[in-house]
Amino acid sequence: MRIDALDKACGRERYAVDETPPDCLWAGALRAGIPHGRITGLDVAPARRTPGVVAALTRADVPGTNRQGIVRKDQPVLCGERVRHCGDPVALVVAESREALAEGLSRIRLSLEPLPGVFDPLQALSPDAPLVHPGREEGNLLARGLMEKGDAPAALAQCAVVVGGRFHTPMQEHAFLEPPSGLARLAPSGVLDMVASTQAPFRDRFEIGQALGLDPLRIRVRAPYLGGGFGGKDGATVQCLLALAALRVPGRWVKMVWSREETFLAGYKRHGAVMDIRLGADADGALRALCCTMHFDAGPYAHLSAEIMALGMEHAAGPYRVPNTRIEGLCAYTNNPVGGAFRGFGVVQATFAVERAMDLLAGRLGRDPAGLRLQNALLAGEENGVGVPAEPGTDVAACLRAAMDHPLWAGREAWKKAAPPDVRRGVGLTAMQNAMGYGRGLSDHAAAKLELTRQGTFRIFNSVPDMGQGNAAAFAAMAAKALNQPETAFACRQPDTRLCPPAGSSSASRTTYTFGNALLGACRAMAAKLRHRAALALLCDEPDRLVLVPGAVSDPATGRAVPLAVLAGFLTRDDRICIDQHAMAVVENPPDTGREFRIGFPHRFYSYGACLCGVEADVLTGRVRLVRCFLTVACGRTFSLAGVEQQLQGAAAQGAGLALFEDLAVEDGHIRAGDMSAYLIPTAVDLPDTDCLALNDDEPTGPMGLKGMGEIGIHGPGPAVAQALKDAVGLCATRLPVSPQEVLAALEDAIS
Amino acid sequence: MRIDALDKACGRERYAVDETPPDCLWAGALRAGIPHGRITGLDVAPARRTPGVVAALTRADVPGTNRQGIVRKDQPVLCGERVRHCGDPVALVVAESREALAEGLSRIRLSLEPLPGVFDPLQALSPDAPLVHPGREEGNLLARGLMEKGDAPAALAQCAVVVGGRFHTPMQEHAFLEPPSGLARLAPSGVLDMVASTQAPFRDRFEIGQALGLDPLRIRVRAPYLGGGFGGKDGATVQCLLALAALRVPGRWVKMVWSREETFLAGYKRHGAVMDIRLGADADGALRALCCTMHFDAGPYAHLSAEIMALGMEHAAGPYRVPNTRIEGLCAYTNNPVGGAFRGFGVVQATFAVERAMDLLAGRLGRDPAGLRLQNALLAGEENGVGVPAEPGTDVAACLRAAMDHPLWAGREAWKKAAPPDVRRGVGLTAMQNAMGYGRGLSDHAAAKLELTRQGTFRIFNSVPDMGQGNAAAFAAMAAKALNQPETAFACRQPDTRLCPPAGSSSASRTTYTFGNALLGACRAMAAKLRHRAALALLCDEPDRLVLVPGAVSDPATGRAVPLAVLAGFLTRDDRICIDQHAMAVVENPPDTGREFRIGFPHRFYSYGACLCGVEADVLTGRVRLVRCFLTVACGRTFSLAGVEQQLQGAAAQGAGLALFEDLAVEDGHIRAGDMSAYLIPTAVDLPDTDCLALNDDEPTGPMGLKGMGEIGIHGPGPAVAQALKDAVGLCATRLPVSPQEVLAALEDAIS
Repeated sequence: MRIDALDKACGRERYAVDETPPDCLWAGALRAGIPHGRITGLDVAPARRTPGVVAALTRADVPGTNRQGIVRKDQPVLCGERVRHCGDPVALVVAESREALAEGLSRIRLSLEPLPGVFDPLQALSPDAPLVHPGREEGNLLARGLMEKGDAPAALAQCAVVVGGRFHTPMQEHAFLEPPSGLARLAPSGVLDMVASTQAPFRDRFEIGQALGLDPLRIRVRAPYLGGGFGGKDGATVQCLLALAALRVPGRWVKMVWSREETFLAGYKRHGAVMDIRLGADADGALRALCCTMHFDAGPYAHLSAEIMALGMEHAAGPYRVPNTRIEGLCAYTNNPVGGAFRGFGVVQATFAVERAMDLLAGRLGRDPAGLRLQNALLAGEENGVGVPAEPGTDVAACLRAAMDHPLWAGREAWKKAAPPDVRRGVGLTAMQNAMGYGRGLSDHAAAKLELTRQGTFRIFNSVPDMGQGNAAAFAAMAAKALNQPETAFACRQPDTRLCPPAGSSSASRTTYTFGNALLGACRAMAAKLRHRAALALLCDEPDRLVLVPGAVSDPATGRAVPLAVLAGFLTRDDRICIDQHAMAVVENPPDTGREFRIGFPHRFYSYGACLCGVEADVLTGRVRLVRCFLTVACGRTFSLAGVEQQLQGAAAQGAGLALFEDLAVEDGHIRAGDMSAYLIPTAVDLPDTDCLALNDDEPTGPMGLKGMGEIGIHGPGPAVAQALKDAVGLCATRLPVSPQEVLAALEDAIS
Repeated sequence: MRIDALDKACGRERYAVDETPPDCLWAGALRAGIPHGRITGLDVAPARRTPGVVAALTRADVPGTNRQGIVRKDQPVLCGERVRHCGDPVALVVAESREALAEGLSRIRLSLEPLPGVFDPLQALSPDAPLVHPGREEGNLLARGLMEKGDAPAALAQCAVVVGGRFHTPMQEHAFLEPPSGLARLAPSGVLDMVASTQAPFRDRFEIGQALGLDPLRIRVRAPYLGGGFGGKDGATVQCLLALAALRVPGRWVKMVWSREETFLAGYKRHGAVMDIRLGADADGALRALCCTMHFDAGPYAHLSAEIMALGMEHAAGPYRVPNTRIEGLCAYTNNPVGGAFRGFGVVQATFAVERAMDLLAGRLGRDPAGLRLQNALLAGEENGVGVPAEPGTDVAACLRAAMDHPLWAGREAWKKAAPPDVRRGVGLTAMQNAMGYGRGLSDHAAAKLELTRQGTFRIFNSVPDMGQGNAAAFAAMAAKALNQPETAFACRQPDTRLCPPAGSSSASRTTYTFGNALLGACRAMAAKLRHRAALALLCDEPDRLVLVPGAVSDPATGRAVPLAVLAGFLTRDDRICIDQHAMAVVENPPDTGREFRIGFPHRFYSYGACLCGVEADVLTGRVRLVRCFLTVACGRTFSLAGVEQQLQGAAAQGAGLALFEDLAVEDGHIRAGDMSAYLIPTAVDLPDTDCLALNDDEPTGPMGLKGMGEIGIHGPGPAVAQALKDAVGLCATRLPVSPQEVLAALEDAIS
């Protein structure tokens, strides 16, 4: 059983949202409520006069730059003159109670003069579009990039077959259980102490410091277990607002918890995207060329939009052998909600487009869609879509074969025939890939601290938040294996910038790999230390012959052993600590294109997979149910099968949500489905049991041979469900989620 | 300039003896004054009544076992019933001032019934000798050992030439500048805090803990720079007495400083030894066999006698190729002063015997003594005297050749002829060897801690006391080189069991090698850490391409750099510390003999050398002056030529003292030359400038290629002066120091 299972199951584990110190204050923001407008009046005096309100702050109260943003700092902590999306905050109230807070917020007098907005990433680039950031030379163009290999337009012209189309993927809500939340206090020492539901505590310090003019090193951020993150807590949510509030009331704790509605309104979203793709092949099905243009809707602030677009572009040719590619990306400012990191990080969008194109190609060639994919599957050593040689372990072909061998695929015709009345069944099989880590341009780095406690047990200082993926338990299991100790001998402290050495964010399928490697380094140092220190106690002249056994260090030559608890008593505190670090290796000779991306291109390591979906479409209602799902992945050696299955099943559920359920219904910048009663996500009753198969290849650079795989599973269900619906009802889906109306229309088309 | 030179030259460096906290108390011991006796009366009440005396303690006041001793615990902290040498302590007085202390000690009424004593290590083993420890089954035999290779008695019988004789080496006083001294205080926390002039702070805790029934982990020992040690501070001197005093007056500092006279009386001495040797060779001079019996005078307590004897035995065949050896060692209790560790640790004695035997053999064969040594010089890969294959770097032949090429040797006949009237000149050339480290049986281990300070400089936590050999400065220089920083960026903290990770003693020519290796490991960890942490600041995706430059970490690819002072500000305290450790490799297949030595046999690494001495004997007074001295060593790569020369010159001076000056004049257990006015040690005016040549071989396992060489230089002058006196006046010296009377007698023999 994983070390944290019982505490989580029993509700004993404390999340940021669970912490409410006695007498803590509450902070909340007033949001714009309109997608674009000029602030013509903002009077917080009535709020200040509200009983129980201790502060009501506006832009004028923000020290520092008032700018946040991971790469480009263009997002205000509090808006001063202009609001650019409905969720933009304009004022911050701090009160003695949640009731007083609500009352205070309600009394603020805000006058906005609406401005024309722009809500489509293509329209945003037209010369006459309203400008989200007036005065920018590039207008609404946030970023543009081009990745080229060979001469794709020329090659397309010579292809025997060319298919193409425009594909849309929607914004998506992370819908984590725990909303953005946290606490902060300006301690008497002058240190700003923060507990937050965050994926990037180390980066948060710099984000807060810059925005508010504070010394980042005088900011302490702790990140308890997260109740979900999925990218939505990578980047500031409550952090700067909380810090601003805490500065106003030195010595007191201030808490901020976004409601579900506020989370929909103000939280980051998966970027909506529009992809125009043309894919050409020889008559035998061998891919020759791909041209793809991707438009990403950034919303009004940069966040990680350029990096997300870059990763999407890097995956645009799929895990296939395509000799000529031309991939263009354009990222536009709009007045929609802010686009941000989300599991699959641009790859979800790219995968839907290329996999749909593969289906179109299979249709045109009269080929089995699985066989066509297998024929073109990228092999180790071949160049991927952006010209980077694929590493050993590029086993998408093995994944495709495993899916093709699955009874659902091999026996799909019989299964379809056995459909109940008024139900059409279909099966789809697509490929998946997802890069691991940050890519070139900044160090995908983590440092791990391991402590031998005075009691002879171990404490791991996790520097990469556990947002539910279970990395804390995985780290304990890894260290237990490395040190030959029971898992119960390990406790895992969650990130705390004061206690833990630095690491990057919990994102990019990187934590288990990068922090895991650092932790194993620390374990090796600890084992060497323990053998050497035990040699002193055992009068052993060959420390390297000593071995760690559960609870002790033993000398096989003499049978004598010294308990770890005794050894720990001999060591000074400094000597009971081992720290090591790891940085993920990068591509050594990156291609010439993609240079516009300062960080994040290209990537060296990928996980691969295949996804098989069986759907049932109700011919009377158009409702589609995902009734069978199988995922297979090549993601290095499996360290924990339960952990791998959990990640694949969770990701597949989120992918299924994208395919069939989730629709924010954004209209002119307003989210119409702004809470969980309108925004439907799949629950257990909506989903089949998902079979998972992990191929046990071995990644030589990985901790215990593994690679990251927290994201890959999300890529399958979208295109696989689309392919299955083509199979079931003849629908050629070009956008997600697929609606019952489209299914019914396809059925009608088929009849007529 | 070495980092501590200025502080030492200006008297700013603080030694234990320099520390006198305000209001500290003074402790002192009453000594037996007779070599063997029964305590018939001991009344400390008059001392207690002395104004200013706060405590007067006897054996009855000692908690714990009252036993100290590094390997065998047979030495009382305070004697209860019997005294076994003149320096044995019987009572301890603690007073407010040194004057009150002296007065208190003088008022103690001690009655002793003298017992017959034993003062010769051979006589001590006769069945009717008085027993030092009555009731011991082995009588006065403390330890006996035998090391055999081949069949030496049989081989001797077949030799063309056999020489032999009995050789004596005397007790020797360490004569360090700073006498044994220290302070202790029982802190309110219950921790016993001690500052002592000690070579083994980590071991001291256990010594004190056992003797006084304290938890060793609640004892903190600090060892500032020592004003000399030479082995005399390896093992308890003031420690247990000071701790006992401190327990009596909780919260107050107690200081103890032995006077010079008390140091002579109670301190450890080099073991006097008697060696019977027979050495046989073929007619061509090739050594065939050696039989040697060594008697060591342990004094009344074991201390390290058995280990010292073992090391002497291991060196008894010299650095020569001797196919058959039989080496017996016997160590006897006597009522002489306590034998203990002293630079050269048994090897001084063995070397005198075997080198004298080589001279006898050269004489018998009519051979040049240097050529005979070169012919038989041990080569790498050949078995040494106890059957252990000699490591690469066994370059005694190269050392001998370098000495033979020296003008003093090559031109000795001319130099001798140029002697002034009434002066006879002679030249001697002998070989040297000295093992490094503890040998098999316990880990020759050290752990090193290196801290990056908040200011971006470095702090080395030295765990092996610097007793004057200059290891602290060497460590700073090593780390500076390893991290490519100026030496001024380094400070070196002296050992403190609370702050430093553990290491063994400062002894056995081991500290620079063992701790140096550990420190270089910590430097490697620090460099890796700094590159990785700097990569975060420099947004560098290849931490390993970063390089340390003075004061910063730099990226050669971009020219950007981050100052260490900035980097240090980012790191938590734990993350600014690196600890690594090293254990010296041991002989893998030790020979069958020597098993009686639980620890310390055999050794794997040796340094080698040769020594050339030119002497002038005054034919009128018999006075001998050492006027020329040249030492050459093969001790790995020279890290600091000044450091090597300093050690060789100091050791040679101590060897010259043994050869010509130092005579404790022990008679029936009483030291007749008990202070520096009677016990003459050589001063600068008594010694020539000593030329030194270090052959730069490279020890692959050593830190920066070096081996330990703090002891080897002491072995040369004794036998080389003896050989030179044979050359000058025909004296066949068999004991050290050589007296003017012997010289005059030899001159008379030559005339008659």
